[in-house]
Amino acid sequence: MTRFMDVHHGMEGITADQLREAHEADLAIEKDEKVHFERAWADPESGTVYCLSEAPSAEAVQRVHERAGHKADEIHAVPLSV
Amino acid sequence: MTRFMDVHHGMEGITADQLREAHEADLAIEKDEKVHFERAWADPESGTVYCLSEAPSAEAVQRVHERAGHKADEIHAVPLSV
Repeated sequence: MTRFMDVHHGMEGITADQLREAHEADLAIEKDEKVHFERAWADPESGTVYCLSEAPSAEAVQRVHERAGHKADEIHAVPLSV
Repeated sequence: MTRFMDVHHGMEGITADQLREAHEADLAIEKDEKVHFERAWADPESGTVYCLSEAPSAEAVQRVHERAGHKADEIHAVPLSV
């Protein structure tokens, strides 16, 4: 398993409720892909959302996000952390 | 206090030791700006580093990073999180 940070653009005006609903939509199906979405952070002003996950691959992360209705614009493996 | 996600590009090949040293350089001086750097994640392949902090302003985050020798390329307030 590898840790990933994925980024969504174009989410200007996202609310706390929308962020929570999107995260819950991921959590509801993540096991199908052996992914776990740990946390997410949103900047409503620039419309940027960051999601931190553990997953077998970037493709698995993207499949969950696509099925949940919010495809990621960037997905980076982040094997290093402090 | 607001939570911020800042992003550094051009860090291709960064090692675990370099990430830890950079984070420790931030921690050593962050109190001067009332900033706290919580975590950081790095993708050595694309050269991207993400830092999560709590701070009074984006400018305070940047001042710490600049004094520590690694200016951020992007700083986003992320007031929403799950």
